[in-house]
Amino acid sequence: MSGNTIGKIFKVTTWGESHGDSIGCVVDGCPSGITIDTDFINNECSRRAPGQSNLTTPRKESDTVRIMSGVYNGVSTGTPIAIMIENSNVQSVDYDNLKDLFRPGHADYSYHSKYGTRDHRGGGRSSARTTASIVAAGAVAKTILSKIHGFEINAYVKKVYNISTNINPLSVTREMVESNAIRCPDLLVAEEMIELIESIKEQKNSVGGVIECVIKNPPIGMGEPVFDKLDADLAKAMLSINATKGFEIGEGFDVIKLKGSENNDIFTILNGKVTTKTNHSGGIIGGISTGMPIIFRVAFKPTPTIGLSQETIDVDGNMISIETAGRHDPCVLPRAVAIVEAMAAIILCDYYLLDTIKRGTR
Amino acid sequence: MSGNTIGKIFKVTTWGESHGDSIGCVVDGCPSGITIDTDFINNECSRRAPGQSNLTTPRKESDTVRIMSGVYNGVSTGTPIAIMIENSNVQSVDYDNLKDLFRPGHADYSYHSKYGTRDHRGGGRSSARTTASIVAAGAVAKTILSKIHGFEINAYVKKVYNISTNINPLSVTREMVESNAIRCPDLLVAEEMIELIESIKEQKNSVGGVIECVIKNPPIGMGEPVFDKLDADLAKAMLSINATKGFEIGEGFDVIKLKGSENNDIFTILNGKVTTKTNHSGGIIGGISTGMPIIFRVAFKPTPTIGLSQETIDVDGNMISIETAGRHDPCVLPRAVAIVEAMAAIILCDYYLLDTIKRGTR
Amino acid sequence: MSGNTIGKIFKVTTWGESHGDSIGCVVDGCPSGITIDTDFINNECSRRAPGQSNLTTPRKESDTVRIMSGVYNGVSTGTPIAIMIENSNVQSVDYDNLKDLFRPGHADYSYHSKYGTRDHRGGGRSSARTTASIVAAGAVAKTILSKIHGFEINAYVKKVYNISTNINPLSVTREMVESNAIRCPDLLVAEEMIELIESIKEQKNSVGGVIECVIKNPPIGMGEPVFDKLDADLAKAMLSINATKGFEIGEGFDVIKLKGSENNDIFTILNGKVTTKTNHSGGIIGGISTGMPIIFRVAFKPTPTIGLSQETIDVDGNMISIETAGRHDPCVLPRAVAIVEAMAAIILCDYYLLDTIKRGTR
Amino acid sequence: MSGNTIGKIFKVTTWGESHGDSIGCVVDGCPSGITIDTDFINNECSRRAPGQSNLTTPRKESDTVRIMSGVYNGVSTGTPIAIMIENSNVQSVDYDNLKDLFRPGHADYSYHSKYGTRDHRGGGRSSARTTASIVAAGAVAKTILSKIHGFEINAYVKKVYNISTNINPLSVTREMVESNAIRCPDLLVAEEMIELIESIKEQKNSVGGVIECVIKNPPIGMGEPVFDKLDADLAKAMLSINATKGFEIGEGFDVIKLKGSENNDIFTILNGKVTTKTNHSGGIIGGISTGMPIIFRVAFKPTPTIGLSQETIDVDGNMISIETAGRHDPCVLPRAVAIVEAMAAIILCDYYLLDTIKRGTR
Repeated sequence: MSGNTIGKIFKVTTWGESHGDSIGCVVDGCPSGITIDTDFINNECSRRAPGQSNLTTPRKESDTVRIMSGVYNGVSTGTPIAIMIENSNVQSVDYDNLKDLFRPGHADYSYHSKYGTRDHRGGGRSSARTTASIVAAGAVAKTILSKIHGFEINAYVKKVYNISTNINPLSVTREMVESNAIRCPDLLVAEEMIELIESIKEQKNSVGGVIECVIKNPPIGMGEPVFDKLDADLAKAMLSINATKGFEIGEGFDVIKLKGSENNDIFTILNGKVTTKTNHSGGIIGGISTGMPIIFRVAFKPTPTIGLSQETIDVDGNMISIETAGRHDPCVLPRAVAIVEAMAAIILCDYYLLDTIKRGTR
Repeated sequence: MSGNTIGKIFKVTTWGESHGDSIGCVVDGCPSGITIDTDFINNECSRRAPGQSNLTTPRKESDTVRIMSGVYNGVSTGTPIAIMIENSNVQSVDYDNLKDLFRPGHADYSYHSKYGTRDHRGGGRSSARTTASIVAAGAVAKTILSKIHGFEINAYVKKVYNISTNINPLSVTREMVESNAIRCPDLLVAEEMIELIESIKEQKNSVGGVIECVIKNPPIGMGEPVFDKLDADLAKAMLSINATKGFEIGEGFDVIKLKGSENNDIFTILNGKVTTKTNHSGGIIGGISTGMPIIFRVAFKPTPTIGLSQETIDVDGNMISIETAGRHDPCVLPRAVAIVEAMAAIILCDYYLLDTIKRGTR
Repeated sequence: MSGNTIGKIFKVTTWGESHGDSIGCVVDGCPSGITIDTDFINNECSRRAPGQSNLTTPRKESDTVRIMSGVYNGVSTGTPIAIMIENSNVQSVDYDNLKDLFRPGHADYSYHSKYGTRDHRGGGRSSARTTASIVAAGAVAKTILSKIHGFEINAYVKKVYNISTNINPLSVTREMVESNAIRCPDLLVAEEMIELIESIKEQKNSVGGVIECVIKNPPIGMGEPVFDKLDADLAKAMLSINATKGFEIGEGFDVIKLKGSENNDIFTILNGKVTTKTNHSGGIIGGISTGMPIIFRVAFKPTPTIGLSQETIDVDGNMISIETAGRHDPCVLPRAVAIVEAMAAIILCDYYLLDTIKRGTR
Repeated sequence: MSGNTIGKIFKVTTWGESHGDSIGCVVDGCPSGITIDTDFINNECSRRAPGQSNLTTPRKESDTVRIMSGVYNGVSTGTPIAIMIENSNVQSVDYDNLKDLFRPGHADYSYHSKYGTRDHRGGGRSSARTTASIVAAGAVAKTILSKIHGFEINAYVKKVYNISTNINPLSVTREMVESNAIRCPDLLVAEEMIELIESIKEQKNSVGGVIECVIKNPPIGMGEPVFDKLDADLAKAMLSINATKGFEIGEGFDVIKLKGSENNDIFTILNGKVTTKTNHSGGIIGGISTGMPIIFRVAFKPTPTIGLSQETIDVDGNMISIETAGRHDPCVLPRAVAIVEAMAAIILCDYYLLDTIKRGTR
């Protein structure tokens, strides 16, 4: 009956449907005195926005934010920051024929079963459009993190269908990620991915992939075991993004190929600081950040909306076939990079702020 | 500063250290009128308990529960159920030499950095021993679920190191899982796994693996989007278990091998009920259960404690080498099966109860 | 760092400053299928709005709501209902001279000390203007309650300064309350109160008073002991309203005048139903509603903004004297009636929905 | 379905029934490195324990705590502190005749209606015995507060029936409060109260009263508006104590006797620090502590259990008369002083820790 809030003391509540009046969020827990740059927020949103390249849906929305509270003279006041984004380019009429259908791979049936009613236009609340609010909130989180600790969060496309890069996460920069339409920092692989997606698009089909995310220079001590482990909440945050099917950290599922003697990261001293010789753990042990780079990956399924004809049923149980014209993404990954970063920033900000409490008591 | 509670309205709070006075939990949110069977709880705990076979640590603890509140004449009263398990077989002296060390792969350094102090004995709060409380709480959740909906939750070992089974999850029964020491329902594969682990044990090393979990006949409608998606909270719950490194649902990371047209589950009508021809999604779409079987997998790293000599540092930064005699598991997976089931039961119970609210308003 | 949300599963998050871009709220937890009437919400807001009579501030704001999400074709969808109210009639220039002052009785100094910065215009976040969002959210709660149980919530002015009514709460109707500008259902007393307030207004001073609230025909079973007692959360909700200084239920502070034998409500059977001969308890025992009418009272202090000259200090510690021209209420009580009702509706809705869970398990 | 936890990041969960196996609590959120003194906790509990004077019930329980986790070598580790108190002196047989009755003024009927079943022995979960856990948790909170800020929290009996003291709260010390059996720091008034209670006890009746609580030297900035105002959560905490019927802060309900010009606390500078000339507000404005002493009062009803014969009904609706022999308090106030202090300490500790977050970001 609720479920639209993430975070414990840095709380983000989102609202809005794909084709409703507007979408937005309330960020409750931003410390006071932080300079909030609307241009930066808009820029982050533009990385997620549709229509940015021919790899994405041609639905064009500027997604500029309106900050309605919590910021005075450009500085946060410690009160909730409410953000709204208008739904400017809705073509709900496109969805009229889908009103009583359950699109395969979509949440139409889930919502219909749970709520008994739904706003079917553009997928309503289950639409990935709602992640624009997350990117806006994530931009606030990034602003806080960059002020207080100098975090650098970089996500990028690691795999698309059968193409992947093995680039060293620590070598990845924002410039490399933004240098191409697919947001893969390995340029040769990026070209292959782009070609593949263009071909998939022509086939009226879609593909999924894997996004990798690296946080360099994280502070030690984030995470509140035993249930609020940092990696546990990163997992939750990532699985709450539309179309995700898996999360892994450090070695992830490949950890089973290693024996204990191979997987244990050996502690040592480097330049007077504790470090580990390897980083199989991905920067988190026992649910608490160790100070080593945090590295995780997220699996995305192929976009369920495709141009090919598919069978399905309507609400009365009649068999019917549908094909979706036009506006959809053959691959969501280039746009999802900004969402993964935003979600990571929200979780890290929450746990960083929580961990500052200990300083108040020492 | 907190973090020891999981669940929204079916809330489980655990407490206790490996070698402290005792461990336990408070289950707040069990409906009244549920028959609570102490034998069933103890039996569940025995599946996780050490010393059950030569594949596990010889540390022997009976792990019988003491129910301290919330149950009167064998029936829940709707008030918190407090459960305690004594720490009967602690040999803290074994850990004296580890007091100032950071064991590789363990949370010693994380806890030391975050808290400035720690109970080092047996790993203290970061020890997997604390999951005994989770199994006890999970037994209460299972009791509720079995009464109100007839859930069946089965977890089992799917992979160990380089050995794996492709058994059909829907064919797995509790008897098959419990028929062998490794808890793999595929008997031929189970034998191979057991041989492997015995060999690893002789090498004084350890291995990890993958546990698969299937929930047959789940109710439709569990999950509260957009952040409290059922799969998101299953992911969080699984990543909060000690030694886990990944979570995936349905096709999981292999989803990238499929195109949209292949991965979309086609809705159809079977025996008058809505179903899907395939179940690539793993029973959850848009964060809400669809009524199809819920199937997910969890990756476990090899036990960090090994008999082989390893290098590390102490709190003063001195290099030192350690080797751990005796009591540890060469592979945690057979014992972790009960933990995965318990965690799944807790999450499902929470979301099932939450979803009943809608019935009160229709 | 947060604190702008009330409710457990019927969650209301408010945002906005008195003279900011706008104010509003997100209602997360409204069940699906509820008809949402914008006119009703606007009408509730108009009861709180300024400028409704010469007893209130002449600041004139229409306070009409814009529903941005969660409602489709006039019916709730189970997703968050976001509501916005524009700040149409702000005269921030009136506050320029107050920018660096701490107004006596106001939260200027509190906010300055806590946050280091603040939006001083119109009191910013600490302004009672923010309660317009609560009234809007309360209107949604009232709609739910009226659909599912037939609640009737009536608040009214019981005392102003030295004038009070002893009207029987059970005899009070909405019409009686709305029949006069002070919202006292006892017409003779109402006239006295109005005269008093007009005189106080001429004196450029202000007065406080007591609002009483009665809920007839409440369901049995609301409240989750031991901490989430229904009366405990009503107390919290009322004390979170601006300018309140006390809460009491049933006999309240006068309970000390009774002995146990006098105060105990004797159970009996009336028309085949359990009832009590008296209702000293005010409808809640042990934190759970008994089915008897819920009756509580809230004390409001005199409006801190007055026209008379007052001494204070500025942020640099200089003594200074201020007098506030124009737009303020000599007595907030007639407008606060709608706020008390709204807050009560939010709490009751939350606990009513929570209590429906038990029905799902019987 | 839950409701047994109080606090946001300093979280206290209590469990246990009056005549069950035992009672206790889990304190999750105690910072690491705090010296925990079991004797101090026991001493606090003894102030609430029965049998301490002839003004209280002769039921004798030592109420010594067993700390089961979270403390190692006498120092908190940052993990949950679980505390248990045995129910040593239960005479459940005394309650056999009450099993199917609804005692007037007690929660028997409320619990029966809500849960359908209950542990009737000694009032079960609704018994004030469960507050022993709160006092133990409060002792931990007091320990933290005394280490980090030097708080002094003093509660005392201000009124009993028709007898009251007007002692200046700022003059009250712990010694004065503990100098007599009724815990009223005004010795002459204390004697009158004691005489009254002895007379009431002979009449087999009971009386209520008012406890006042003062916190001297509180830090500025505690409280998270708009809903988590410090006074709002103090109100909730106090109303969650058994037998309370009202809460007021500063002038409280008497604030209506003052005009705005009289009630506003004038800011001024004293010894270089901001202060107010008066403290009508009771130390909290806008929900945030101002640094002035926090002063509030709580109304307690007369103990519902009395020796006089009373009418009531049983679960089948039959009229029946009961009289309770022996073990009950003619006046709960002397024992409740420790509970009020403990609850205040828990709330203050929670908000103090929350407010330290801002320091981590400046």
